[in-house]
Amino acid sequence: MTKVLPFSKEQIQKIITQYPTPFHIYDEKAIIENAEELKKAFAWNEGFHEYFAVKAAPNPYLAKLLAQHGFGCDCSSYPELLIAEQVGNVGENIMFTSNDTGDYEFQKAKELGAIINLDDISHVAFLEKCAGIPELVSFRYNPGSLKSGNDIIGNPEEAKYGCMENQLFDGYKMLKEKGVKRFGIHTMVASNELNEEYFVETARILFNLVVKINKQLGIKFDFINLGGGLGIPYRPEQKKLDVFKISEGIRKEYESILVPNGLAPVKLYLESGRFITGPYGYLVTTVRHLKHTFRDYVGVDASMNNLMRPGMYGAYHHITVLGKENAACDHVYDVTGSLCENNDKFAIHRELPEVEIGDIIAIHDAGAHGHAMGFNYNGKLRSAELLLRTDGSVKMIRRAETVEDLFATLDFAGLKDFK
Amino acid sequence: MTKVLPFSKEQIQKIITQYPTPFHIYDEKAIIENAEELKKAFAWNEGFHEYFAVKAAPNPYLAKLLAQHGFGCDCSSYPELLIAEQVGNVGENIMFTSNDTGDYEFQKAKELGAIINLDDISHVAFLEKCAGIPELVSFRYNPGSLKSGNDIIGNPEEAKYGCMENQLFDGYKMLKEKGVKRFGIHTMVASNELNEEYFVETARILFNLVVKINKQLGIKFDFINLGGGLGIPYRPEQKKLDVFKISEGIRKEYESILVPNGLAPVKLYLESGRFITGPYGYLVTTVRHLKHTFRDYVGVDASMNNLMRPGMYGAYHHITVLGKENAACDHVYDVTGSLCENNDKFAIHRELPEVEIGDIIAIHDAGAHGHAMGFNYNGKLRSAELLLRTDGSVKMIRRAETVEDLFATLDFAGLKDFK
Repeated sequence: MTKVLPFSKEQIQKIITQYPTPFHIYDEKAIIENAEELKKAFAWNEGFHEYFAVKAAPNPYLAKLLAQHGFGCDCSSYPELLIAEQVGNVGENIMFTSNDTGDYEFQKAKELGAIINLDDISHVAFLEKCAGIPELVSFRYNPGSLKSGNDIIGNPEEAKYGCMENQLFDGYKMLKEKGVKRFGIHTMVASNELNEEYFVETARILFNLVVKINKQLGIKFDFINLGGGLGIPYRPEQKKLDVFKISEGIRKEYESILVPNGLAPVKLYLESGRFITGPYGYLVTTVRHLKHTFRDYVGVDASMNNLMRPGMYGAYHHITVLGKENAACDHVYDVTGSLCENNDKFAIHRELPEVEIGDIIAIHDAGAHGHAMGFNYNGKLRSAELLLRTDGSVKMIRRAETVEDLFATLDFAGLKDFK
Repeated sequence: MTKVLPFSKEQIQKIITQYPTPFHIYDEKAIIENAEELKKAFAWNEGFHEYFAVKAAPNPYLAKLLAQHGFGCDCSSYPELLIAEQVGNVGENIMFTSNDTGDYEFQKAKELGAIINLDDISHVAFLEKCAGIPELVSFRYNPGSLKSGNDIIGNPEEAKYGCMENQLFDGYKMLKEKGVKRFGIHTMVASNELNEEYFVETARILFNLVVKINKQLGIKFDFINLGGGLGIPYRPEQKKLDVFKISEGIRKEYESILVPNGLAPVKLYLESGRFITGPYGYLVTTVRHLKHTFRDYVGVDASMNNLMRPGMYGAYHHITVLGKENAACDHVYDVTGSLCENNDKFAIHRELPEVEIGDIIAIHDAGAHGHAMGFNYNGKLRSAELLLRTDGSVKMIRRAETVEDLFATLDFAGLKDFK
């Protein structure tokens, strides 16, 4: 099985003359089409809003592109709030979902008018002290054993995130007493989930909880944030999530739980990252070396510092050798980077066409949690990010790091006098 | 069981007034004492040289400190070569051990007169073409099934590093024909190994191979690089490696294998990183939040971006709550950072004294592969590095990152016109 690329070998060869490999390249057309599809799927819910999880691909150009299609920013830290601000996504176009939050972060979120989503009831007092309580506040709910969790994020009961159900009742009561006028609720219990029913079940749990809180405290919620966790088909045999199926399932729960309880209309929010840009970003790299020892190795000019998921999680990322899309995959390789770290492998025992030095390789699904998770271990420099525009042109949206960037926090001048 | 800190709570509180947490702090006195001990253990071997593995703690101040005690630099990349150059460690004070190497890296290594240690026989032609073959060349040997490997680095047969035995014969022959006058050999098959016998066995394998190559090709080796991999006792119940025991074991092999074959004297090299700075660096962080849900959480102001080993490898790092060194460890906590990543935990189910907000925590053994592996995921900024001098003063040897550093590769000005 295979995966189709939005560019040809010839196109990439042309791009390389200006931007040497390795680089990440994002497909604008596909990102927009996918974003519009998600909006369309949830169009039945007035006020539906998707907050792009900036952490997945913290590039302001991508955030702005999505903002132009109505997406807000889901931010988890001070620097991510700055990105949202630069993009012009302020006020309730920002969902600030953080944990173990610093005071300066709550202060910035408040200043921008962001929706503050509290991870713990103790954060009510903390927020009040450091920034003051805004008019609209949300809590993150951890459903514990009500929800089975999934492989990547683990069981909710083992997760550091969110409040337990009984804490929520105390929390909202406290907020009410402190003058909060509008309320939100949020949960996020999966990561990279490909089962549509999982999201419907999450909505059902959250909707039932909203009814319970309403009955007990008289609170009418302004929004219900269903979180993210929408997975993508990393493997060619996997299928893309059907967002219409998810939406339709959630609509049924909405109508059977919220409507009869007089809690509709209520805005539904999502905060996907991976689903929005993941499949539409590629790490492009050139083959530097072929090595034949106990295995056959393809050594490329990218490494784990450009894409950590295979090394960190053992994650599968599909690989296409450009110009050999239709060749038989009759060779078996480990595809490696140059780190002195044996898990610096993009693929292990991967069936590929015969690879030659100089071949250009595209590593798929690197559009989320790819560049974002890059590090400088072994002194490796993080690569550039390019945007393949809808007209076929290419725009550099982040330049490659230089050694000057790498050494920016070091005082080499002072080294002379150091004894 | 416990681990002793080289500083008191009062000392750290004073340091914090100038350098806010989180920061890494290195203990100069302990680093020097340990370095001198290693040298002393191998003093029987004339020409013994330790090359500090820069990747473990790529700070030029640490490298210079070690250089002043006679240590060279083990470099794996272009930026690490630049660090060695800045430190004044050039020529054969640099061991350049890389894999999947770029041409510009070999060129820089050659320019600095570094010892070039080739990872593959195909690199002979590559090096010749891009930089020319120097007078002294080494090969990295992968012993395959001869060596069992260890948990961290995996089985040698599954490792991407080095040449197989039969390839070495061809490789050295090739080098000889190309006019190489001096030869080295290297292997590195363990990481964080705490069994002294492991290193003796590695030496035995390498010494026997040297005899074989000498017999077949008439090559007399200039040096034998036994690699690194010397482990450190992360857990309080573990014992520090006895380098005298390792050295004595290696000396016996040297005398029974190399001496009778007329191959002595030959210089022995080591390239440790973790062993040199690991136990003498601490990540110091302040408790921001306490959270009680399904578990009890201590949320600190450091996160996985300061120390990735627990999150990436599930590695144990000992934790001391300053000022509570002697209190009973009668509470159980998960100690977490603030990343939206559930593996951002420094400890899981850890027995600690009762922790309060504002407590200062020292995370031990963060002096190697700590700051070095830091990333900016979730927009987190990497922290400062401090050196606790032998006279008790503190020197900042790397400043903390700023948002300007984080955004250095982004063109925010151009964002205005982006549509």
